[in-house]
Amino acid sequence: MTGLDAILPVAGIRLASSAAGIKKNGKDDLVIFDIEGSSNCAATFTRNAFCAAPVTLARQHLSKHPPRALLINSGNANAGTGETGMQNARQSCSWLADELNILPEQVLPFSTGVIGQQLPMPAMQSGIKQTVAGLAEDNWSAAAKGIMTTDTVAKAISKTVVVDEYQITISGIAKGSGMICPDMATMLAFIATDANIEAGFLQECLSETVTDSFNAITVDGDTSTNDACVLIATGKAGNGQLNGKSKEGSMFIAALREVCLYLAKAIVQDAEGATKFVTVSVLQAKSKAEARNVAYTIAHSPLVKTALFASDPNWGRILAAVGRAGIESLDISGVNIFLGDVCIVRNGGVDNDYTEDKGQAVMDQHEITITVALSRGDAVATIWTSDLSHEYVRINSEYRS
Amino acid sequence: MTGLDAILPVAGIRLASSAAGIKKNGKDDLVIFDIEGSSNCAATFTRNAFCAAPVTLARQHLSKHPPRALLINSGNANAGTGETGMQNARQSCSWLADELNILPEQVLPFSTGVIGQQLPMPAMQSGIKQTVAGLAEDNWSAAAKGIMTTDTVAKAISKTVVVDEYQITISGIAKGSGMICPDMATMLAFIATDANIEAGFLQECLSETVTDSFNAITVDGDTSTNDACVLIATGKAGNGQLNGKSKEGSMFIAALREVCLYLAKAIVQDAEGATKFVTVSVLQAKSKAEARNVAYTIAHSPLVKTALFASDPNWGRILAAVGRAGIESLDISGVNIFLGDVCIVRNGGVDNDYTEDKGQAVMDQHEITITVALSRGDAVATIWTSDLSHEYVRINSEYRS
Repeated sequence: MTGLDAILPVAGIRLASSAAGIKKNGKDDLVIFDIEGSSNCAATFTRNAFCAAPVTLARQHLSKHPPRALLINSGNANAGTGETGMQNARQSCSWLADELNILPEQVLPFSTGVIGQQLPMPAMQSGIKQTVAGLAEDNWSAAAKGIMTTDTVAKAISKTVVVDEYQITISGIAKGSGMICPDMATMLAFIATDANIEAGFLQECLSETVTDSFNAITVDGDTSTNDACVLIATGKAGNGQLNGKSKEGSMFIAALREVCLYLAKAIVQDAEGATKFVTVSVLQAKSKAEARNVAYTIAHSPLVKTALFASDPNWGRILAAVGRAGIESLDISGVNIFLGDVCIVRNGGVDNDYTEDKGQAVMDQHEITITVALSRGDAVATIWTSDLSHEYVRINSEYRS
Repeated sequence: MTGLDAILPVAGIRLASSAAGIKKNGKDDLVIFDIEGSSNCAATFTRNAFCAAPVTLARQHLSKHPPRALLINSGNANAGTGETGMQNARQSCSWLADELNILPEQVLPFSTGVIGQQLPMPAMQSGIKQTVAGLAEDNWSAAAKGIMTTDTVAKAISKTVVVDEYQITISGIAKGSGMICPDMATMLAFIATDANIEAGFLQECLSETVTDSFNAITVDGDTSTNDACVLIATGKAGNGQLNGKSKEGSMFIAALREVCLYLAKAIVQDAEGATKFVTVSVLQAKSKAEARNVAYTIAHSPLVKTALFASDPNWGRILAAVGRAGIESLDISGVNIFLGDVCIVRNGGVDNDYTEDKGQAVMDQHEITITVALSRGDAVATIWTSDLSHEYVRINSEYRS
């Protein structure tokens, strides 16, 4: 079930969204998750060394206590803000902790928006009070909207699975602007389930699914300072505790993967300026790392991306990207490249049956798959990306406003 | 001495340029260098695994004999052309060898232009005959024009040095389209000197200077299938043989570095669509590789490049690029970042004295220097690049014509 209408509440999670006045346009910019005690929580964060103040603080808090609340503001990234930024993040957590009667260390803070500006603290203080007053189980769609920056659509999905006789719900929301945020593309995702899941296994589930979903999308290769993904399990569904060894655990991972993949693809599809949704699959690589590296080299190539924008079957650019991906002693005579179902390169050279018309027919579509088979092993990787358009340059070169 | 008027002949080198009909617009597209025997020659080639047929063949020929001729065509890259492409490159070398009465293996072939199309062989055959008829010592400026594809200016430089009492001349031409070639940005550079230089030392000179000149520029990170740089020493100047141990050898390297740097920067400055010329310097890195990696991460970031296009002092994007460059255990409190002379980040946070006006003043200029000091060691690297503009997308998304 996807879309805002279909998003299901998760027992043990109350949430709310409101307009605190952080965004200049008056839209919702503050979202709070209230998490029942005894829930488990897993999280992954950006690997950018210059991570934002809330990322640093969320990591610290997570290492101390299971979180009882998430405090998310949009419109301001609280990144590049130094010690004042850290103090502001701490103060915001304290205000929410007071309202909910929990410890400040039980609050995880998240920010997304303009970089290099201090949080407007009076707005945060009154906004937190006002948002807490609205906490309810059925506010997921409001929350999906409240975490948006310049996203054009809210991104939300629910998925249910029956484990033994218990129905488990997984609901998730994400925001991701690709290149559309005038300052920094940030990705945030918040997923909750009522499943009863062993804490260590919960982190495993998240790490495993994130690699092939949120960590497999790219618009421009610019890893943000604020990226974060949180998975909460409230344990309210009544099922026996899931762990990594059971069939039920595998079912949960499969469902979680669907949720993460849907949200990750929705981010790429909403990358402003994007006119194409592109899947890059690399097969027969020596290792997963090699497969991912080749896929990313293609997905990040400005020449490939502008050809995609132009719907130009300019396969030489794909071939050149593979050639410069730094694969050790690549035997190019083993390389096959496909555009959709059309073989463009066979055994390292243009396929005999390839015609420009066949390539053009694939390139004219909105969704395009590029497949590269390396004949070196059996590792695979898939990356999702967008094209590089005039609109992309316009959006990202407009003065910050 | 730079520019087409000032380019000096090099004793022992005759050259010519003509219109063979490879380019559709009727401009010069065939250039031949005739090199006197006893000359030494050094070369570097693209590291792209899918290198073009002429690159493969030039490498083979170079390993067998000192070259006596260069055969360069523009308008067709002879890349992605399989075994037929190899045969065509071999045949072209044979035709020129017959004209000059040398071995086919003494000819080095080079191609630049559209990828994936076979060379027009009748045009090559008659063009070679016609070009050979025009060989002369003073044709450098015609050659600089003849190797252009969609370059907007020809790139040429001469430099003289007095070694003992002998005057040595170094002349060089280059073509480089940055992003402007509708198919593939290719870089070719041909440099000749009349200096008497020991063969091994000549290759050392080239390898050493190329690293910090041609291999230190980037427009889009898309390493071409055809890149090549050739350095010929005819030994006609009369000087005692230069080697790596002498002061005179160091003087030669210094002069060669000036030539390579001028041509490399001229390529970045001519990157069509570019509105800025950007120098990225990384200081105090642990190793040269680390310094280059950080500089390239900044230089390739679409977010940094669009900010440069917009003259927007959006320093958060530079900071985020440094943060994601994968430096092992980076202590961000040791990082200082400068925009021109203006300190934007000091000890990992915004500098107290930084103002938007100061940053804006630097960004409004055509030539912009970004300096990052890491406080980790004493290795340095400098990379030159351009911005990412609307024009860049237009050029690279236009259908191949």
